[in-house]
Parts: sequence; structure tokens; C-alpha cells
Amino acid sequence: MTPAPTTAIPAHTPITQPPKAANSSLSDVAPEVLATVRCLAADLVQQFNGGHPGTAMGAAAIGLALWGDVMRFNPKNANWLDRDRFVLSAGHACLLQYIYMHLCGYPTWTMDMLKRYHSRDFIGSQSAGHPEIEFEGVEVTTGPLGQGVANAVGLAMASKHFAARYNKDDCKVVNNKIWCMTGDGCIQEGIGCEALSMAGHLGLDNLILIYDNNRVTVDGNIDICFTEDTSAKVRAMGWEVIEVKDDATNDVQAILAALRKARDSPSGRPVFINIWTTIGFASQNQGLAPTHGAALGEEDVEHVKRFHKRDEKAKYVVSDEVYNAFDSVKSRGKNYEQVWNETMSNYSQKYPELAAEFKQQFSGQLDSKISANLLPTKDKLPTSAIPTRKASGIAVQALAPKMPQILAGSADLSGSTFVTWKEMEDFQPPVTGHGSYAGRQIRYGIREHAMAAIANGLAAYNPNAIVPVISTFFMFFLYAAPAIRMSALQGLRFIGIATHDSIGIGEDGPTHQPIGLASLFRAIPNLNFFRPADAEEVMGAWQFGMEEKNQHTPTILSLSRQNVPLLPNSSREGVYRGAYIVKTVGSSASNNGLASLTLVATGGEVSRAVEAADELSRLIPDLAINVVSMPNQRLFDQQSKEYRQSVLPLHNGLVVAIEAWSSYGWARYSHAAMCMHTFGLSGPQADLFEHFGFGIKSIVSHIHDYYQKRIKLQSPVPCAGDFEELLLDVAATAHAH
Amino acid sequence: MTPAPTTAIPAHTPITQPPKAANSSLSDVAPEVLATVRCLAADLVQQFNGGHPGTAMGAAAIGLALWGDVMRFNPKNANWLDRDRFVLSAGHACLLQYIYMHLCGYPTWTMDMLKRYHSRDFIGSQSAGHPEIEFEGVEVTTGPLGQGVANAVGLAMASKHFAARYNKDDCKVVNNKIWCMTGDGCIQEGIGCEALSMAGHLGLDNLILIYDNNRVTVDGNIDICFTEDTSAKVRAMGWEVIEVKDDATNDVQAILAALRKARDSPSGRPVFINIWTTIGFASQNQGLAPTHGAALGEEDVEHVKRFHKRDEKAKYVVSDEVYNAFDSVKSRGKNYEQVWNETMSNYSQKYPELAAEFKQQFSGQLDSKISANLLPTKDKLPTSAIPTRKASGIAVQALAPKMPQILAGSADLSGSTFVTWKEMEDFQPPVTGHGSYAGRQIRYGIREHAMAAIANGLAAYNPNAIVPVISTFFMFFLYAAPAIRMSALQGLRFIGIATHDSIGIGEDGPTHQPIGLASLFRAIPNLNFFRPADAEEVMGAWQFGMEEKNQHTPTILSLSRQNVPLLPNSSREGVYRGAYIVKTVGSSASNNGLASLTLVATGGEVSRAVEAADELSRLIPDLAINVVSMPNQRLFDQQSKEYRQSVLPLHNGLVVAIEAWSSYGWARYSHAAMCMHTFGLSGPQADLFEHFGFGIKSIVSHIHDYYQKRIKLQSPVPCAGDFEELLLDVAATAHAH
Repeated sequence: MTPAPTTAIPAHTPITQPPKAANSSLSDVAPEVLATVRCLAADLVQQFNGGHPGTAMGAAAIGLALWGDVMRFNPKNANWLDRDRFVLSAGHACLLQYIYMHLCGYPTWTMDMLKRYHSRDFIGSQSAGHPEIEFEGVEVTTGPLGQGVANAVGLAMASKHFAARYNKDDCKVVNNKIWCMTGDGCIQEGIGCEALSMAGHLGLDNLILIYDNNRVTVDGNIDICFTEDTSAKVRAMGWEVIEVKDDATNDVQAILAALRKARDSPSGRPVFINIWTTIGFASQNQGLAPTHGAALGEEDVEHVKRFHKRDEKAKYVVSDEVYNAFDSVKSRGKNYEQVWNETMSNYSQKYPELAAEFKQQFSGQLDSKISANLLPTKDKLPTSAIPTRKASGIAVQALAPKMPQILAGSADLSGSTFVTWKEMEDFQPPVTGHGSYAGRQIRYGIREHAMAAIANGLAAYNPNAIVPVISTFFMFFLYAAPAIRMSALQGLRFIGIATHDSIGIGEDGPTHQPIGLASLFRAIPNLNFFRPADAEEVMGAWQFGMEEKNQHTPTILSLSRQNVPLLPNSSREGVYRGAYIVKTVGSSASNNGLASLTLVATGGEVSRAVEAADELSRLIPDLAINVVSMPNQRLFDQQSKEYRQSVLPLHNGLVVAIEAWSSYGWARYSHAAMCMHTFGLSGPQADLFEHFGFGIKSIVSHIHDYYQKRIKLQSPVPCAGDFEELLLDVAATAHAH
Repeated sequence: MTPAPTTAIPAHTPITQPPKAANSSLSDVAPEVLATVRCLAADLVQQFNGGHPGTAMGAAAIGLALWGDVMRFNPKNANWLDRDRFVLSAGHACLLQYIYMHLCGYPTWTMDMLKRYHSRDFIGSQSAGHPEIEFEGVEVTTGPLGQGVANAVGLAMASKHFAARYNKDDCKVVNNKIWCMTGDGCIQEGIGCEALSMAGHLGLDNLILIYDNNRVTVDGNIDICFTEDTSAKVRAMGWEVIEVKDDATNDVQAILAALRKARDSPSGRPVFINIWTTIGFASQNQGLAPTHGAALGEEDVEHVKRFHKRDEKAKYVVSDEVYNAFDSVKSRGKNYEQVWNETMSNYSQKYPELAAEFKQQFSGQLDSKISANLLPTKDKLPTSAIPTRKASGIAVQALAPKMPQILAGSADLSGSTFVTWKEMEDFQPPVTGHGSYAGRQIRYGIREHAMAAIANGLAAYNPNAIVPVISTFFMFFLYAAPAIRMSALQGLRFIGIATHDSIGIGEDGPTHQPIGLASLFRAIPNLNFFRPADAEEVMGAWQFGMEEKNQHTPTILSLSRQNVPLLPNSSREGVYRGAYIVKTVGSSASNNGLASLTLVATGGEVSRAVEAADELSRLIPDLAINVVSMPNQRLFDQQSKEYRQSVLPLHNGLVVAIEAWSSYGWARYSHAAMCMHTFGLSGPQADLFEHFGFGIKSIVSHIHDYYQKRIKLQSPVPCAGDFEELLLDVAATAHAH
């Protein structure tokens, strides 16, 4: 086993001469501030014997340079529109942010609030183990490594977009910078690399990434797994790179110089600042893994205080000197906002129309009637069979040109996912000649995971100012799933266009056929997952996703590659209820103990169910047969019991589900299911549906056999627990495994 | 919108002088071979008007250099142990591989088989849209971009490991190289970057990555989204980089020189060969996106043939001259294997013990009795409450030292996932001083996605020679999910240790609490997902995962951070049945229409159910109450109807599920569920369980209320469709969204 390193990385002690911060009061007390932050972090982790002290202690000087000097914000109004955004991608280091927000005087970040870190008093607490978007001064929820870096890229893109759209040479209303702080983890994660590569291509010179390079992770020194030249790698991805080498743990001056250089850089590139620090500085274990994610222990906490020449028994000490030093931050912040307010009023006079648009876009309101009215009514939809992905394209062409909030893009499949529209412009650096930052079509490249996390940044910039539309094959939404989960967790809306959503993708084969993925998106809280049956249901899903009441809920549309007909009785109202009857055949003259037979299906399988119902009705003329389209299971769960029983009469009829995915989850809505039980195959889509048992003949014969079997029984209506898989044998023969 | 580029990237025409391949016969006909491959690719895509011709045409020369010269393989025995491995990460370019395997004379790769590409005759076909591991000569299934690069890293690690373990200076039985071919997509994907970074750190000098740099993706020219200096980036990650600049589409000689240089490089680093090619070379649209993923059209196919001075109407033409030229490849391959056989017999005489181990490890057999016998019996397990992740650590310490097949690792959380053991050695380049390639503890770094895809490469090297064990928090298995799905699809076994599997992770908060993820792993085909209730069930899950019958099925163990007691009646036999009764209290003297009340739970919630059952029995003395542990739903589904009804009597009793995850899927096994309906919170784990309704009092009161409500009804046993969520209100108040 790799021995834990026995010698700590050497650190500057005693602390170097007082660093010079922008305002003298802060520079004078810099050593005092660093000592305060480290002792406080050590105390807060020690109190309940848990948390992450190391980075807060090692990066204290970075924090001082950021909150004490270079960042533009107003602690008395955390939501001031033109504030710089700060993203702590290394979310476990949250104490650094919490403590500085406390020192800066954010009203809710009291000492009592800090002390709730890891406490039992967690309801309504802001001192969570990772920063969350609900908390004052926190822009995005971070924690799963790499997400924050991509969120920051999204925030920077949003800022670039609004600046390009609204700024005038004589009147700039969008001037902010995006600061992101990361550790090794976010750089190692693939999503981090995707985001870095994209930011470099886009030339996001308003983005500054601070790499707290402490060479230590949970498992020990970084050199057991990560020995690349990160600065060179990031430079190769189009970034300007600044290094603060040696140990910069206490060198506020050097850090400040680097941050200012980055902020004022004319390079036209995002800036990566590689700062070498000592994790857990001032601890007996400084520079070592044990300081990363655990309490230091009472004795070591005392050592930290002795090292800083403080009372080793006194806890949670912040001197008036330190508090007073941050008064300048408060006054500066107030001033920033005042100046901006003056700019805005000047802007309103000079450019009243733009100012009106600006205010509308940043009002936090997005009138969903607008989108509802823009979407074509059913009588305007193509009557010929088309893929639901193309129907979604009709919605995009109706909405995007008229709704500036929509920034749409694809992970290199825009020709297949139909998120483009006439007259659109690419979101690109003007130098490329491919578009401008005012463009609203984003070329995400083959970076699905970053695409979704960047969308979170776009949505987080300001409520409802941007509605990101992201798209790729359904299969590759699994690459993006960790970021999509973060959208749902944070209540950030996007519209996800997931196309080629079944074996209907055909010849690309099993690697591209998303068997089982829907179960994830149906199970994640606060996510609207739709599988529309036709163009009308696509309009309903789009309309629902754009609703005010869904402004805190992401929406995914699972769409077909293959053609599906427009169903006579499909309706967007039905979509809102989650499931509804789209077809009824036969009479209820049955005297075999069954009130009815119901086929419940989703997406492309609904039209197959409709065909099968007609055929079944010929075989069983004395039975009422309903076909139910169920585009959204969760919305159906929210309907009244009466409605649910009227649509899926599980008590007195037979209900069979038809869906070319895993049967997982269908037992709640049906007595039997015709679903996939293996992965798919490579072949023409029509033949694959036949092969896996979804041909009309197969559907009819399996359901008829099941019906015959049930009516022979004393009680033909199945009990709970009688769930049957009708295609178990068919599908099981399909794949080698 | 970005205009599609109007001018093609210039290509060398007419074809340059005949390149010199190693064996004269091939070099003489090189231009003829390239023409043949391009015309054949064009024909095969045209026949059913679908597929990917561009890369096969643009990279034909790379293919000739690989299959015609530098790669060591025997077409008559595709499974020869010491063969070079080839991975086509850009799986959509499969025609390149299929056509060259045909020319090399792989028995099953006949012209008839090639013609089944995109045909309706797909059952038993090998000409799938992406290469699949079942096919002769294919090492891994690729398609989702980036996976193949990581698979290749895994194959290279396996080769390095076996070489370090078995080779002797005078007798090298493992000498192969791993060749991987990739396009832009795999390089843009995060997983590709993770794998590149890891390979660089590990100094895998047996790995050669060929970058078919054609500057074109589905959406158009690469410069709309990807403008980094990839060679510099990869060099910074520790790779040797060779560039074949200019247009190398036809320069077999230059490509061959680069491949040989890479193969023979003494740098001790993996080698990245950046080869500039023209996609769809010889098409009227050469160098343009339209040649990437669609048929060229009859007219353009004829143009390709005219360009190559061939009969524009003749299809599927391969001249005898070309076939004959590949005779040398067959004879060379036969010779490679003969020489190796001699080396082996020599090795067997000199090192009989090692040779025996070698043969055992590569026998394809892994006797599961070994693991079953190594695992401690229940009476040897700790009687005190421990986390199930620690119980798994006991299994690892019992198995790993005695089973050389186990290569375990963690994504920087080995201290938390307990996949380490005494006396283990790190898998590291000796130069680092941290271990050797003979080591079996892999430091994956913070690269979860690559970890799982690398495990696929380790497992694919040879059947059962390696059983990869991968580990991280359950939450981060979502980062790895796309690769885990590929494990299940390919039938590649790993043991996944997913720890901190619920709100029991506590203070880290909602970002780290995997609500809803289990639904994905329960729905994916061919995946064993276990959530063991205690140490005994952990042993059962480990034993099951190591079974012969599961050699083609990956296994995931979802494990607790918090302590759970050893249950008196838990058993590994019960684990094999998916669900079983672990506790019975009360009598069946009930005359209220209910035969029994059953609480079915998983993992850490089982011991809570046991406590609650005792309390409920005091409240309802005249009712038999069973507690069922359900570590694996799918295994339970496979049991007889009689057994299932005896464990979960849904027909005549009440069944309530208790699981601190989403309720999705539980309607199949219970009438009501106590589950999470929002994301979690940051707080001490015990308090979180109380808060979200999983405290004993809450469980008892909710279930007692539900029981009271049911028995007041005429038929207390719920019907199908009566599924109820008992914690809907409790949980809904927990999170801001």
C-alpha cells in the first residue's frame, strides 16, 4: 500500500510581511484575518467532530483576496443583478465561503448560523455540508466534483450573452466576472475537462478559474494518481494560465496580483490561475490528507491557535479589528450597486426599448401564456405521420424566434434533434466568423455531461432570464444524468430533447438503445419526464415545461426517431393529466367478469396499441377496449383517485402496459406488461419492433392469450402481486447475454 | 446558423507513389487496397441507404498499416492469448474494421457477412452498426463515444499487469500492444480525458492511441466547437505525441513509420498519434460532414469508383490481387502464434509453477467454490453493529489476498469503501516508488466514469482472468453509469462497491444522497443490484457476484455508511432468493380479514423494520407480522410463484415497503411504501432518518394508521392499483423544491 507521506509540504512560517490588499485597512489585518479564518474553520469542524477544515485553512489567503478585494458584490443585496458570480466547485470547502460571507456581513450569515455546520439544528440552516443555491450569496449548489466548473462556464456564457445583447459602448449594464474555485477533483473529472475545453473555444474572458493546487486528495498525495502538467493542459485548451508557484498559502499579495491580472487581462481568453497552497495550513498535519475531510482533534486545534499566537482555549474568536476591516467591503459593495443603478437609469433614458426588454428579461417572470399561444394548435399540425422529434422541431421553430429566453443547443446532433430554427445565430466568439455572443444556438460539441451542467449555469444566472434547451440522443442523456439530477435538486429549469428513444433508432444497435434509462428519470424527484405519443402531445409537453409553475422543474421529452401518426383523440390537456384515454372500441356487454380491457402505452407504442385494439376488438367483440396514452407517470399519480380509476380500471378490468423499455415501474399501472427484458439489436427499426414482440400480431396474440387465461379463472381481475411479463420469453432470446 | 463549409479540405490526388509496407506484396498493392476498401465501404452503406462511410474511406490507409503490417494477430485464431488488442473507439466506423478482418481472412468475416450491414437479416449477423464483443476479432463493444479509449487503457493495464506477474527476462510470455483508434468525439468526451490522464500517469507504454483527425463531426467542421491543441493537451497528460501532419489520407508510408515508431518507442509513455485525414476521401463531398453518417448516393458512389479508375457499376469488388496480398498476413499470424507456443513450452519447463498459475489464470475458469470457501461463515462475523461497507471490507480482505484475479480500486475513496487489504501493493509504474504493475490496488483518481470503463477493459482482456472491483460513494456511480451499462451489455463482470448509499451519509447533504438512482440499476438488463441488510447478506452478495453463472454479469453492492446490526435470521441463502423472511412476530389469530402484515425493506432499513415490527406487534397482538429483507428484486422475480406469495402475501395480507429511496418500482412488491419523495438534507444521519419519517415511532404510527384504515374496509386487502405512499406529506416538506 502507498505509505502516507511522512513529511509535510514545507510552508512559509512565520507569516510573511503584511500583504497589501487594495484597501489599506484590509492589508493591515491580513495576517489576522488568515489566522481568524483558520482557527474558525478548525473550531467549526471540531465542534461536532466532522467536516472539511483543510481547504478552508489552506486557501484562506485566496478567500481574502477574493472577498476582501477583487470580487464585485454587495453583501447587503446578495442578488444585485450585475454582481460578480462566485462558484465554489470544490463544495466540500464550503466553510471558506461561509466564513468570508460572515465577515463581509451578509445578513443571514451570522456566527450562530456558522455554528450550525454539522449540527442537529439543520432545518432551515444554511451551514450545509456543501453550499446550496437556496442560501444567501450562493450561486449554485455544488458538491459532486466537476459540476461547479461547468456551472461557472454556463454563468460566464450567460453574462457574455447579455452583455452582447444589451451593452452599448457608452452604457454597459452587464460588466460582471465569474470566479470559480476548484481543487484537484474537479480537474480530474471528465466533466471538468469538457467544460474547460468548451470555455477555451468560446473565449470566455469573463471567466476566472482559481485552482487551489494543494497536491492532496482524500486518499493521500496527488502523485499516486494524477501527475500531469495541468497548466500546460489547460493552456492547450485555449486558456491564459497564471501560476502562483512556491507555497502561496500566505502570500495574499502574490495571489491578489494574479487575480487582478486575470480580471484585467486583455487576452480574450478565460484565465486559469494555478495557486500552490498547503492544505490544512497551521495544523500539525498541514500538507497531509488527514486535514482534508475530518476534524483535526482538540489537540491539533489548539496547535493551530498556538501557531497563530492565540489563546488555545478560546473558540469562535473574531476580533473587532477583523470585523471592522470588512466595513470597507460593505461600503464598497453599496457603492458598486449605486454606480450601476445610475448606469441603468442613464441606459433607460438613452435606450428605452432595450431597457424595457432588459427589465422584462430580468424580471424573474416568464409568462407561460406566451409559449402556449405561440405553439400551433392541433388543427395546424401535420396530419401525416412524422417522428415526435420533428414535432418538437415545430415547437422550437414556433417558440425560439419569439422568446429571447431560449438558448438552445445540441451535443453535435442538432441535425437529428431539431433544436435549430430559421434566422438563428450561433453563440460563438465573433472572431470565429461563425456567430456572436448574442447568438442563441449553442454548439456544445460532443460533451453531453458539460452540456447539462452548463445549462444549469445558464439557468442559475437569474430566474427565468434564460430557458436552456439541451439535446442529444436519449441514450446519451445518461452521460448527462449527474448534471440533470443537479438541475432537479437545485430547481433549475431546462427543456431536454432526448431523441431516438428506443429500439426505433434501429441499425445503430444496442449501444444506442436506451433500455431502462427512463426508470432513472421517472424516479428522480422534481423532474418532468414526458414520452409523447404524437405531435399534439409533444406540444402539450413543451407547453407544460414552459409553465410558470414549472420554473423550478426541468423537463425531458423522450422522442422518437421513427414516424408516428397524429392520433384523432390526442390532446395537450390529456398530457397535463399524465395519462388519458385516446381510443375506445367495443361494447361493455361482456359477462365474463371483466368490465374492460385497457392497453396503456407511451410514445411510439401508443399508435401500435391503437392498431392492436381494433384487432382485439374483432376477436373479443363483447368487451370494451380502451387505449390509454401515458406520457407522464408522475402527473398521473397526482390526479384524483376517481380519475385514475376511470383511466386505468385496475379493480374491475384488465390493464396491459406496452412500452419498448424495461418493465420496471409498470406494476403500479398495469396487471401485465409487454416490455424489453434484454438489450436491443442492430437492425432496421420496423424489423426490431417485430423481433422484440411489438409487432401488431404479437401484441394482439399475447394480450388475447392473457385475456383468455384470465377469464378462465374464478376472479379474472388480477390481485396485487399478480403482475406478469408477457414478453419475457420473446425478448430473452434476443441478445447474447 | 453556421453555414456548412462549402469547400472540401484539399486531398492528395492522384494517389501518391505506392507506399512501402513491411512486406513487399502489400506495399505493391497498397493503392489497390485503399481503393478497394473505399469502394466497398461506399457500396455497403449504399445498399440499404444507411451507415457511416466517411471514416472507413478516410482512414483506409491507417487500416492497411495496422492490419497489413504492425498489428500482431492470427486471423485463424482470433482468440490467441498474446495477440495485440485493437479497440475501435469510434465504433460507428466499424466498416473499416469489418472490411480489413474480411481481407485478413477471419473465417466468419465473409463477403456475405459484410453485406448484412444494415440489412434485415440481422439475427446472428456480425455486421452490426457498431462492433460488438461477441464478434470474431472484436475485443470490446464500442459506440457511446469515449468508452473505447478507457477500455483500451484497461486492456493495456491488464497486459502490463500480466507481463509484470509472469514475464521473465529470458522468457516473455506477455508481449502484446494495445492499439486504439479514435475520432474527435472520444477526445471531447470527459471519459476520454479521464482515461488519457490516467494512462499518462501510469506510463502505459504498451498503449498506442491513433487519432483519426479529420476535423469533421456530425454537425459540420470541428472548429464550431473544438479548437484546442489536442497534441499539446495529451502531451501535458504524460503521453508521447507523434503527428502525421498534412493530409495523410493516402500516405501509408508516413503512417506506417509513425506506427512503428510508436510500437518501438523507448519513452516509457503511452503514444498518441495525431493523423490528419480527409473524411470520405474520394467522395464528391470528401472532407465534409455529409460523408460522416449517411449513404453517399448512387451517383457519388460511382464518382468514388471513377476516381479510383474502376468500373463505376461494379459493386463489392475485391480483386484476387488484393486477396492474395493478404496471404502474407495469414502466414505471419500463424507464425506469431507458433513462436509464442514455443516460448510457452520453454517457459513451462523453466518455470513450471508460474506456468501452472499462468494457465490457471487464463483457463477462462474461475472456481466460485474458492470464493465461497474463503468468505467467513456467519458465526465468524462481528456480532456488533457495523456499516455494511465495513462488512464488505471483511469480504475483500478474505478474498483478495488469495485470489490473484481480483484487481481492486477506488475513485479516491479507498479509505471509505474498504477495498484495500493487508500486504497489498499499488498498481503503479515502478519509477513512482509507489508500487509496481504487479500490484492489484488501482488508484483511479477522481475519475468514476473512466474507472468503470477501464474495469471493462480489464475484464475483457481474457475471460475471468481478472475480476475488477471498483468503488466509490453510491452517488458517484451515476457518473459511471454509462460505462456500467456497457458492462451489462457486454457481459463483463465487475464487483461494484457503492457506499454511503442513502441519507445515512448525513452531513454531506442532498448532493451526496442517491435518491432514485437504484431504479436505474434495477431496471438495466443483466445487472445484479444488491442492497444487503447486514454483514451476512454482504457475504451472500459477494459470493453471488463471484459465481461461475455470473461470470457474464456485473454486480453492484449498495452499502451503508452507518452501523447496522447482524440480524439473527439473515442468511446468504436468503440473498440468493432475492427476498426472504428475517423475522416473524405475533400470532395469526386475526379475524379481521388479514392473514398477516409484512414489512419489506432493504439495506439499513431492514433493522428499522425489525424494531418497528416488535412495536407493532404490541399494538396489534392478534396479527402475524413478518419482516422481509429484499436485497435483490430481480432474483426474487425469478423465484416460483409459490415462494413469492409465501414471502410477500399480497393476496391475503398487507405488505408495506420501507426504503429511504424513491418509491419507484415498489408497487410490484407492496401495497404501500414508506419512501423518500424529495431530495435529502445535510444533517446528522440519525436525525435525517427521523426527519424523513424513518424513525421507529414514525414507521409504527404510519403503518398502524394504514392498517387501521384498511381493516375498516369491507375488503382490507388492497387491489392492484391501490398503491399508497405513506410518507408523501412528511418528505414533501423537507426540501426547498
